[in-house]
Amino acid sequence: MITTEKAFNLIKKNINKNLKISKVTLKNSLGRFLAEDIKSNINIPPQNNSAVDGFAINYSQKKNNSNLNYKIISEINAGDVFKKKIEKNQCVKVSTGSHLPYYLDTVIMLEDIKYINNNFIELPKILSTKKNVRKKGEDIKKGKIIIAKKSILRSQEIGLLASINKLEIKVFKKIKVAIISNGNELVNPGINKKNNQIYDSNRFMLMSLLKIPCINVTDCGILKDDYDKIKEKILKLKNKYDLIVMSGGASVGHKDYVVKIIKKIGKLVFSSLAIKPGRPMSFGILDNEVPILILPGNPVASFVTFNLFGNFLINCMHGLISKQPNFFLVKSNFNMIKKLGREEFLRGKLIRKNNELFVIKYSTEGAGILSSVVWSDGLIKLNSDVNKIKINDYLQFYPYDIFK
Amino acid sequence: MITTEKAFNLIKKNINKNLKISKVTLKNSLGRFLAEDIKSNINIPPQNNSAVDGFAINYSQKKNNSNLNYKIISEINAGDVFKKKIEKNQCVKVSTGSHLPYYLDTVIMLEDIKYINNNFIELPKILSTKKNVRKKGEDIKKGKIIIAKKSILRSQEIGLLASINKLEIKVFKKIKVAIISNGNELVNPGINKKNNQIYDSNRFMLMSLLKIPCINVTDCGILKDDYDKIKEKILKLKNKYDLIVMSGGASVGHKDYVVKIIKKIGKLVFSSLAIKPGRPMSFGILDNEVPILILPGNPVASFVTFNLFGNFLINCMHGLISKQPNFFLVKSNFNMIKKLGREEFLRGKLIRKNNELFVIKYSTEGAGILSSVVWSDGLIKLNSDVNKIKINDYLQFYPYDIFK
Repeated sequence: MITTEKAFNLIKKNINKNLKISKVTLKNSLGRFLAEDIKSNINIPPQNNSAVDGFAINYSQKKNNSNLNYKIISEINAGDVFKKKIEKNQCVKVSTGSHLPYYLDTVIMLEDIKYINNNFIELPKILSTKKNVRKKGEDIKKGKIIIAKKSILRSQEIGLLASINKLEIKVFKKIKVAIISNGNELVNPGINKKNNQIYDSNRFMLMSLLKIPCINVTDCGILKDDYDKIKEKILKLKNKYDLIVMSGGASVGHKDYVVKIIKKIGKLVFSSLAIKPGRPMSFGILDNEVPILILPGNPVASFVTFNLFGNFLINCMHGLISKQPNFFLVKSNFNMIKKLGREEFLRGKLIRKNNELFVIKYSTEGAGILSSVVWSDGLIKLNSDVNKIKINDYLQFYPYDIFK
Repeated sequence: MITTEKAFNLIKKNINKNLKISKVTLKNSLGRFLAEDIKSNINIPPQNNSAVDGFAINYSQKKNNSNLNYKIISEINAGDVFKKKIEKNQCVKVSTGSHLPYYLDTVIMLEDIKYINNNFIELPKILSTKKNVRKKGEDIKKGKIIIAKKSILRSQEIGLLASINKLEIKVFKKIKVAIISNGNELVNPGINKKNNQIYDSNRFMLMSLLKIPCINVTDCGILKDDYDKIKEKILKLKNKYDLIVMSGGASVGHKDYVVKIIKKIGKLVFSSLAIKPGRPMSFGILDNEVPILILPGNPVASFVTFNLFGNFLINCMHGLISKQPNFFLVKSNFNMIKKLGREEFLRGKLIRKNNELFVIKYSTEGAGILSSVVWSDGLIKLNSDVNKIKINDYLQFYPYDIFK
């Protein structure tokens, strides 16, 4: 049994396969991973412009001039081209974003002036040069790398790409993932089940977790606990997919099959974790470098381990120097005794008391209780060397949104 | 100028329109909002079952019996139906998830027994009754509401729905959102622009932020700063969409148009915020109850205000008693002087020092710098009554993922 820390390192070390590259349009690039460094061909802003609504002046004309009365000689709005000369005690009304010629180097905010009449304003006594002017190229300098290869494209990257007129982008091809469940007790929702059977929930949950733009997920159904059938299936899948995610078949009874098969046609990297829930989780690399993630059949354990390791693995497959998921410290709203020597992941819900954040835990700790995950906002991690939690202790909290 | 707190309340108070309801299949339900309470027609688990791999016994036969040697008389695996009787000092090998008849009420973990030979095991001395058995209906009791109306369906809810065989679900119809940019300086990426023009990035960014399952977003292009054209467009859009999101046209110069138009054909709820960036943000309700969000033209201000208020507004439209976005406290890694009387949202990046989380801020504070958003992990909120930040102060941090 190994720690999560060790598991993260082993996953990172064992991913070798390089993803292919394809081109997408900007509108279809959200959530994809960049396969090129992005350089800008233009300056942003393309010219000096006003950061506020106000009045533009030439600062050198203002120096040593105690007359604060200025005549408004013209107006510039965003999109206008302005070339008029400007004299002492003259100013130009400008709106946010309007381009300024080099000699209009200082803008005074609307709120800081006094109107004398429609044609004259009074400036404030204290002024500083170059105030409220955004410089040409201040956001982006022509030729500079603005988004590095392997970055994931979020909404802000999409905006940045639009602003430099980049409409076609090289990204890594979608990772083809096969999702498969394993267990004699499982049946598909939609049919009448016997009392000794249960509806398979893991595939639906995992397919939803993998409904992300960089993934192409395929439902590969339910497999019975049968050595030959499992082996045959894995042999087929490894040539068609980039990643196999199997749930069930990871507990000691069944696991022997899958572990034996992986050892035969690849390398078993690890086969159990010192965590609760999720102990039976295993990970291997098949002989053609395709990784295989074996999650516990238990839905909560499957959910917890996939959140911890699934997205991490996907980041590694994109060649990211992958960081582990971020946690935040929040105060405990409960007392608890814990077994030493294993990490525990409780389902936690955030509450606010006097505007301070606390976390409460689900009352039952049974790993089978999928309702606990539905109830919760994230996972509380208890380290292996902790044996007692008291109210107001700081706990590590992983909000579910953060795993994406 | 109002605070964000006040703005959240005003948005909530002014949303009145009810969304229509439609049906979706389970596989298409991720990210949709439930329009019905979900009750279960079955118990989960359907029968008592084993929570671990191990050996099942009848506890009452064990009581007052000091003989710890037990004969393995059979085996139950998940999916098996087991009906055999069991005698004193007999046990049944069970795997995780296997269904147990009522008289097999206690399971001893594999790790806690000693094998004597293939047919006999030795139990540990101390045992407790009903250990390691998951009770019928422990996760879900037939007839109980397990997911409440108005909940958003995440992966865990999808899993839970699969497990109760719920394949068709009533959800609120997708919200139709019109995205529109406004400004004479804007041109579409893909064309050759003049030096006084800039490529419109806001629409691409906002469409990406709204690429979520409960939204149907339409790109409505760029509008010139022209009172009649803007009015005509809003009149058209309000009858076709559930929500209008306009960016640009929010600064004082242009804003007059949009504010006048909203006052004419609806109600202006607020028209500026005491925040930086994002001050010119406005919000109104048109005469047919369609809300209109006017974001600043500046990309960073647009990004910040949409993250703060856009998703909140969408939650309100789904009838959620909407909570404001959650923030976490992280330690500051910088010193800063701040103006009193307004909230500030800095772009922050998380770093770890000795396994403790710190936040650093983008070096330039200019709101025009979209690169700052690309660089960052989330927003740092500085309250209006703060005028100084020191290293190690606790700051409010909103990770970007959390807004979704």
